Amino acid sequence: MNENLLGIIAGVLTSISMIPQLVKVVREKNVEDISLLMLLILISGLSLWVWYGFVKDELPIIVSNSFAVLVNINLLICYMVYNKK
Amino acid sequence: MNENLLGIIAGVLTSISMIPQLVKVVREKNVEDISLLMLLILISGLSLWVWYGFVKDELPIIVSNSFAVLVNINLLICYMVYNKK
Repeated sequence: MNENLLGIIAGVLTSISMIPQLVKVVREKNVEDISLLMLLILISGLSLWVWYGFVKDELPIIVSNSFAVLVNINLLICYMVYNKK
Repeated sequence: MNENLLGIIAGVLTSISMIPQLVKVVREKNVEDISLLMLLILISGLSLWVWYGFVKDELPIIVSNSFAVLVNINLLICYMVYNKK
């Protein structure tokens, strides 16, 4: 299989799987199950993957991890807005 | 920065961020917030990333996505065991 196509399919699947959590948090306005520390670690890690993608010049890695960073920054914003503590 | 080191750090961070969900599910024996469909899509996507890593011969991608597959297969097993419906 073409390796870029493989990466794109992999990226689409792992991206799709992140959407429901964002939808759930936005709909229920409840972030008590989200750990701020873990969210920050995840965003840092995903950002490094984007960097890695640029270093290796691999579009599937850049696109899918950028998407994941965006989803998780949205979760972070939700956390700030909805967290009551 | 050495690109493999970059990939390893990125992989460690995104891997660490997955552990708390597994710990939470195992501890609380509660999987009602987990979607089976999304878990299957995620495991499929992560497995394709492992495949992509082999095609591209990139160890950081192979290792971090294999770890993610293992964590999510554990979540899948928890889902089977704890799901009451």
